[in-house]
Amino acid sequence: MRQRNKPWANDYIAGHSHIAIQNPKEQRGKWSKLFGNENPIHIEVGTGKGQFVTGMAKANPDINYIGIELSQSVIVAALQKAVESECENLFLLNENAEDLTDLFAEGEVDRVYLNFSDPWPKTRHEKRRLTYKTFLKRYQDIMVEEGEIHFKTDNQGLFEYSLKSFSEYGLLLTFVSLDLHSSEFEGNIMTEYEEKFSNKGQRIYRSEVKFRK
Amino acid sequence: MRQRNKPWANDYIAGHSHIAIQNPKEQRGKWSKLFGNENPIHIEVGTGKGQFVTGMAKANPDINYIGIELSQSVIVAALQKAVESECENLFLLNENAEDLTDLFAEGEVDRVYLNFSDPWPKTRHEKRRLTYKTFLKRYQDIMVEEGEIHFKTDNQGLFEYSLKSFSEYGLLLTFVSLDLHSSEFEGNIMTEYEEKFSNKGQRIYRSEVKFRK
Repeated sequence: MRQRNKPWANDYIAGHSHIAIQNPKEQRGKWSKLFGNENPIHIEVGTGKGQFVTGMAKANPDINYIGIELSQSVIVAALQKAVESECENLFLLNENAEDLTDLFAEGEVDRVYLNFSDPWPKTRHEKRRLTYKTFLKRYQDIMVEEGEIHFKTDNQGLFEYSLKSFSEYGLLLTFVSLDLHSSEFEGNIMTEYEEKFSNKGQRIYRSEVKFRK
Repeated sequence: MRQRNKPWANDYIAGHSHIAIQNPKEQRGKWSKLFGNENPIHIEVGTGKGQFVTGMAKANPDINYIGIELSQSVIVAALQKAVESECENLFLLNENAEDLTDLFAEGEVDRVYLNFSDPWPKTRHEKRRLTYKTFLKRYQDIMVEEGEIHFKTDNQGLFEYSLKSFSEYGLLLTFVSLDLHSSEFEGNIMTEYEEKFSNKGQRIYRSEVKFRK
């Protein structure tokens, strides 16, 4: 992606390195120190334009959030929101989800959020789905015991696939909604994408799973 | 339920005791002998008016089917279908699902079907749901190792509940469809209820789970 970056995005990110952390792999194992407290760390993998992670950071000042996004041209939109929000409990990383174990030490993360991840519908692309077993292994490697994955999507196929993948990995399903916006679930923070598609009457699927002891 | 039985139903059932097995608990551990072969035994718990189990028996002559239904006035409709079908691989039992372990010996059953089971939506009735853990235990007790439960319903709340209950019990989710009739699933045999509700555009949810070794 980097070759398609725009110069202003580079400059904007460089100018806000207290939020968009540079060389984040150097912070591995030291995120609490950088946040300046021992609050739980929740990460969003594929944070997109940042409405979810910024909204969560505002709503939950006692939790530290880290949004991870591969595309620099997308994460810059998240950075703008993060700057405006003036939250001190939010970092953004322009990194690849495949590198999670280089970014976080064992047990450093309490929860992983996956929101409207790319469905990669073709079978030959299964390994790219963020709920494929190799990704689940990465989440497990960086999370506390009984760490949780909170996942939502409007993509029926990806949701079906993910429920099976979670089960095969031995994860415990603790919450599932097959129509989130018609449910009694409270405190939902919508992503940009979710807002758009749920307004069209599309169902949103949501699940929570956790690793077993 | 028995007090509401009609005399003709009693007579009809008694007259077809080669299908509607009388005193079925006496057959515990001896079902293969009664079928006259060693084919796998699949049971439907809550067989209703019998369209599913009769259709399955017709479509799969190499599998033995047993439909179990508590209500005599309902099972008599299933019996009429079974008589017409002339299948030799189908029995019907007018019994309570709570008594499964009195009806079948350990490892005697290969698969359990649950179709459009009563959702019992009130939390205080959770224990009555056929996917509650005590029922899962009964299915496990009578099934082979890695026995399967195939479940479908139009009830979103029951499906969500059941996915969690299966997961908590440690069952492996091997198939899930959140919109069966729009999926590529082949060979679906509809229940009477399913036919009615899917024609109204209602989604049908379906899952397959199996006990882990």
